[in-house]
Amino acid sequence: MVVFESAVPDFFLAHYDIGAPPSRSAPPSRPAGMPSWLDVLARIANGPFVSIAKIRGRARGAGSEFALACDMRFASREHAVLSQPEIGLGLVAGGAPTHYLPFLTGRGRALEIMLTGQDYDADLAERYGYVNRAVPDAGLDGFVADIAGRIASFDKAALVEVKNFVGEVSLPAHDLQTATSRAFWVSAARPASRQRLTAAREQGLGRPGDFEMRMGQHLPGLDQATDS
Amino acid sequence: MVVFESAVPDFFLAHYDIGAPPSRSAPPSRPAGMPSWLDVLARIANGPFVSIAKIRGRARGAGSEFALACDMRFASREHAVLSQPEIGLGLVAGGAPTHYLPFLTGRGRALEIMLTGQDYDADLAERYGYVNRAVPDAGLDGFVADIAGRIASFDKAALVEVKNFVGEVSLPAHDLQTATSRAFWVSAARPASRQRLTAAREQGLGRPGDFEMRMGQHLPGLDQATDS
Amino acid sequence: MVVFESAVPDFFLAHYDIGAPPSRSAPPSRPAGMPSWLDVLARIANGPFVSIAKIRGRARGAGSEFALACDMRFASREHAVLSQPEIGLGLVAGGAPTHYLPFLTGRGRALEIMLTGQDYDADLAERYGYVNRAVPDAGLDGFVADIAGRIASFDKAALVEVKNFVGEVSLPAHDLQTATSRAFWVSAARPASRQRLTAAREQGLGRPGDFEMRMGQHLPGLDQATDS
Repeated sequence: MVVFESAVPDFFLAHYDIGAPPSRSAPPSRPAGMPSWLDVLARIANGPFVSIAKIRGRARGAGSEFALACDMRFASREHAVLSQPEIGLGLVAGGAPTHYLPFLTGRGRALEIMLTGQDYDADLAERYGYVNRAVPDAGLDGFVADIAGRIASFDKAALVEVKNFVGEVSLPAHDLQTATSRAFWVSAARPASRQRLTAAREQGLGRPGDFEMRMGQHLPGLDQATDS
Repeated sequence: MVVFESAVPDFFLAHYDIGAPPSRSAPPSRPAGMPSWLDVLARIANGPFVSIAKIRGRARGAGSEFALACDMRFASREHAVLSQPEIGLGLVAGGAPTHYLPFLTGRGRALEIMLTGQDYDADLAERYGYVNRAVPDAGLDGFVADIAGRIASFDKAALVEVKNFVGEVSLPAHDLQTATSRAFWVSAARPASRQRLTAAREQGLGRPGDFEMRMGQHLPGLDQATDS
Repeated sequence: MVVFESAVPDFFLAHYDIGAPPSRSAPPSRPAGMPSWLDVLARIANGPFVSIAKIRGRARGAGSEFALACDMRFASREHAVLSQPEIGLGLVAGGAPTHYLPFLTGRGRALEIMLTGQDYDADLAERYGYVNRAVPDAGLDGFVADIAGRIASFDKAALVEVKNFVGEVSLPAHDLQTATSRAFWVSAARPASRQRLTAAREQGLGRPGDFEMRMGQHLPGLDQATDS
């Protein structure tokens, strides 16, 4: 039983460092053939343990993907923000949210989340199924501790079998996931994304400030900024 | 980026003209083997563009199927009505809502929608996942324009790749869809549907009036009407 | 058209008699190879009729599985409780809720329900999609009678075809379901479940009283109780 939480105010897990050039940040593949980021996610999603994402602050891009790979997601009503902002940077999200999200939110809302790159607060994320529940921040720690404590008291062999059975009908095939990683790196090399990434870096991507705090608001203008 | 809306008050897209005899209204198949209505839907669902159904008024039968084929659905809280009324006319819905709806609403609610033929207002449609969101009518145009505008500003290649990836795990196979079209025409030739269609036409099917405005209320009595 | 309801106050269908030793309660397989409990569920889920679970009181374990196999679930807002408590007894739920629930609630909420074994009231069950709708108790009978009445007035052949089409994309394969039954009997023979079952029987499992009324509250302590 593992609970993932952030020690950084305002952020659960910001996002992948998409500002780095592909040649430096493209990770080596794992022996089994899965790119290393997908391997991390698959080890969480398929691992013989139960995982909870306790989300305060922003979980965007890879941060959202990390939360999606966990077995459950509980979000602070006041302080959680989830999004897949890649599309605003000309990128195809590479950690397979395209294949995880439909099993949580349904097809239409999964498309909305990934085609708009908007910020989703906890209440809307709950209505969409993006998180299990939005919980008032003051009660979130106790709420998750109760759930984690009861699960930890149960028999591990049975927990793992249940998790594996659910996975049989609700996890995407590895080859589908791998295709998203390839698409990410192809999209990261296109002029459309290089322009947007340059504009985003100029406006504050990857640094403390308004761009990272309200990224959803800043994405639509990036193509214009790079043209000037 | 395309937004579908209706210029007709009270109706988004009423329904297929199920009053016409099959010999006249059965459409020719397309070269690829899909009946033409399914071909229309598949071109929307699989096409290299993003589509939004902005729903005011009634979207029933083929109108609902059209909305289901779009990538996203936003509905006027005060003025949207969605339904699959075919069952009330003895018909099997032919545009594959049986295969689209479960990926939006889950199995139980999809069965309810299609086995009851009831009218669903926007709030209930949102709770069920039938639409992405119900939006107050006064704000619907601005809401959809914002979303459409931001999507239109993004890179088209990345948008299409995301749409295709989501489709891999959330669109039904073509052969499953085609079977629903065959079942529609078989059901349309049965006495059970001919009787109900005759009664429905007598009561106002296909003409302005209460039957079309509140069709869900009128469906249960049709079998009795035809017996008299 | 069949509506399942309970004549026993406080219980829709309590649960399988997991207190009995496997040698006595393990059911014979059916000719087709499905264990008999799964055969019951499959006959409901695949049968040529429409089924509604009208849930008042507790539907736990096999009681929840019975409701999941029905086409629709409507729950009393004040009096319904649903859960899969098996995990708290060291057991893997054997009636395939691991394969039914994800098609109703999505992956994350299905995992939560089965890994925590908590009690879910009607409102939360509705938010999760575990039931179609929570209905105020005073109106539940009329609500379900209206729906059952309208469905019963429709053409049976069309109803069955719709149900079958929906099942094509929303019912688990028989071999996946059968594996859960095997896992149940394996888990029932482990020391971890024998200890917990002994403790649960001592505390009131299977007898009228607080343990059966609030089972979700009693599950976490069972491993400690058996150690003493």
